[in-house]
Amino acid sequence: MNNFQFYSPTEFVFGRDTENECGKYVKKHGGTKVLVHYGSGSAVRSGLLDRVTKSLEAAGIGYVTLGGVKPNPRDTKVYEGIELCRRENVDFIVSVGGGSVIDSSKAIALGTVYDGDFWDFYIGRATPEKALPVGTVLTIAAAGSEGSGDSVITKEEGGIKRGTGSDLIRPRFSIMDPQLTCTLPPYQTACGATDIMAHVFERYFTNTKDVEMTDRLCEAVLLTMIKETPRVIADPNDYQARANIMWAGTVAHTNIVGVGREQDWNSHGIEHELSGLYDCAHGAGLAVIMPAWMEFVHKHDVMRFAEAAVRVWGCQMDFADPEKTALEGIKRFRTFLHDIGMPINFAELGAREEDIPTLVEKLGLGDGRTGGFVKLSSEDVAEIYHIAAHASL
Amino acid sequence: MNNFQFYSPTEFVFGRDTENECGKYVKKHGGTKVLVHYGSGSAVRSGLLDRVTKSLEAAGIGYVTLGGVKPNPRDTKVYEGIELCRRENVDFIVSVGGGSVIDSSKAIALGTVYDGDFWDFYIGRATPEKALPVGTVLTIAAAGSEGSGDSVITKEEGGIKRGTGSDLIRPRFSIMDPQLTCTLPPYQTACGATDIMAHVFERYFTNTKDVEMTDRLCEAVLLTMIKETPRVIADPNDYQARANIMWAGTVAHTNIVGVGREQDWNSHGIEHELSGLYDCAHGAGLAVIMPAWMEFVHKHDVMRFAEAAVRVWGCQMDFADPEKTALEGIKRFRTFLHDIGMPINFAELGAREEDIPTLVEKLGLGDGRTGGFVKLSSEDVAEIYHIAAHASL
Repeated sequence: MNNFQFYSPTEFVFGRDTENECGKYVKKHGGTKVLVHYGSGSAVRSGLLDRVTKSLEAAGIGYVTLGGVKPNPRDTKVYEGIELCRRENVDFIVSVGGGSVIDSSKAIALGTVYDGDFWDFYIGRATPEKALPVGTVLTIAAAGSEGSGDSVITKEEGGIKRGTGSDLIRPRFSIMDPQLTCTLPPYQTACGATDIMAHVFERYFTNTKDVEMTDRLCEAVLLTMIKETPRVIADPNDYQARANIMWAGTVAHTNIVGVGREQDWNSHGIEHELSGLYDCAHGAGLAVIMPAWMEFVHKHDVMRFAEAAVRVWGCQMDFADPEKTALEGIKRFRTFLHDIGMPINFAELGAREEDIPTLVEKLGLGDGRTGGFVKLSSEDVAEIYHIAAHASL
Repeated sequence: MNNFQFYSPTEFVFGRDTENECGKYVKKHGGTKVLVHYGSGSAVRSGLLDRVTKSLEAAGIGYVTLGGVKPNPRDTKVYEGIELCRRENVDFIVSVGGGSVIDSSKAIALGTVYDGDFWDFYIGRATPEKALPVGTVLTIAAAGSEGSGDSVITKEEGGIKRGTGSDLIRPRFSIMDPQLTCTLPPYQTACGATDIMAHVFERYFTNTKDVEMTDRLCEAVLLTMIKETPRVIADPNDYQARANIMWAGTVAHTNIVGVGREQDWNSHGIEHELSGLYDCAHGAGLAVIMPAWMEFVHKHDVMRFAEAAVRVWGCQMDFADPEKTALEGIKRFRTFLHDIGMPINFAELGAREEDIPTLVEKLGLGDGRTGGFVKLSSEDVAEIYHIAAHASL
């Protein structure tokens, strides 16, 4: 186990109708003038935005609103938010939405109190030193952004997707009402589930030995997702399954399932080029990429993949040929993704094999290699895209 | 799943030699004048106290020290600490020790800024409204107090043991160097392991249905403890096993393994009378009480105990007779406790069956009942003590 620091100071307020307490929590965490940031009109039509702003009014807190955040949130909306926050002297941001809205809010939180261009933080040109406080009212179980210090933004010009991270942008509170996720269509629900599972697998495959507590926490989230996701696909209004998935999404990404070890994150990097280029859902891209990545790297640590197969997927261990077990686990993952309605290859995703050189070039490794479980060259990444292009059950 | 609030704002700093960073973290969390609170002379003899105070000096932070906290920490030491903190204008408390020292520190933190008697918070006569901030340098993996808002204190007069809880006394930071636990004798190590497992079981046995994510997190901690504890008993200097257990102890008690459900805690209440009367180790008392409690209540939800047996203890499910599986799980727990060197009945603990009426009377249920998984009367508690008195493998 490696030395680590773990800090998750977000106050999670979980359960039915908790969105009505938003004003109370803004006040508790010191906000006096709020930007309510949201995505599509559904937050308006469902009456959610109204409930949130009413709770702000009840707490005597002023606010301005800014909607229109799209999936794979853009820098253009961030600039708009920064300008609004400065003009209106906003001191607290409340995100009403999923990961895209929260990530956009975090970028605005960083940019509003920074003299330069907020994009500096996303390309490693600057390190965050301060930020406006952010709170969230979560509507999608997926990104885990409600409990993380991470944010991913896409630069509209060129479709470049980049991330940043800092404890400063961990939400002060996150309000999580599973009822809000019941209206989510099956496809988006499945995309979210895939993202949650990917957040765990990115941390599960590690070269650090003897991190049993973290391993078991990873498996706990994955086992929960394997049980609960099909329930929600079968019945979108199953509150209990929605609740378990929503909380699993948070546990998957506060980093409690990742402490004390090297992590990978290559599948996320490789996927970002897909959603950057095709504007597909991040979770759908991960469903295509992650099993392909697993097939490409499994020989690096066959016993680790066998462990996942046995502990997570319930495979029988083949003691004579552990690689068979390892591959069986990957196959079960891909089958699970297919069964919940996810694409498993380029054709199903709407990606094109002939774009692979472009995707690899945009990833920008050049002659270098990524970090992670297995360090990948541009050729390796191209091979993973090719495996993903042709995958089948 | 029930609605819940989960808030664990403690900054955990984990790994080798992290105690040298204590001053840095006191400064980060706003302390300027520290009470360094510790237990036995071993913190002095090992040089730990010296390393901690040196790090405070390096950060330019003044301090006073107060040692002598005993296991099952007493109100008398708390009063001493409160007086010292007031006299010296202390604004931050650093606990160097295990759960007893941390619990004592939390009581001092509450009492210093309270006009009345700190004991009011422990007998439900007052609710905490403020507290001095507390940080910890943990030396024993057991109580989980380094990540919890709980504190248990024993009133010297009459040996009455009572607890209180508030987010206000959650440590601001906890420094956790597993190396510091390597000198702990096997018996105390096993007591700590038992306490950690008990913290999970108190939350695992619940009447709330459909809390799969929390169930799986419980099982993750238990599986880790079952694997790692025998390693440490076999080799006290096994850093990796010490590290996994230390972190498991924290995860077991931030309440992340307990959210969204009713919890039990009757075994803790029943045990507190044992350690209150005999001054035995809390973990040793739990080793005697908890399996006895399980035997007494298992019929209330046989399938739940069968689930624990299968998922945690690796029993084969007896589908024709689930109760057999349930009882097999309890038996494996008791055998595990025996194997790591714990007492499993009154004689091994040094308790006396003839004291049972006294123990029951001190618990103070009278004609009432406890809350929890199964609501217990005084007669039920007496029966549990009797089962515990006579338990064998």
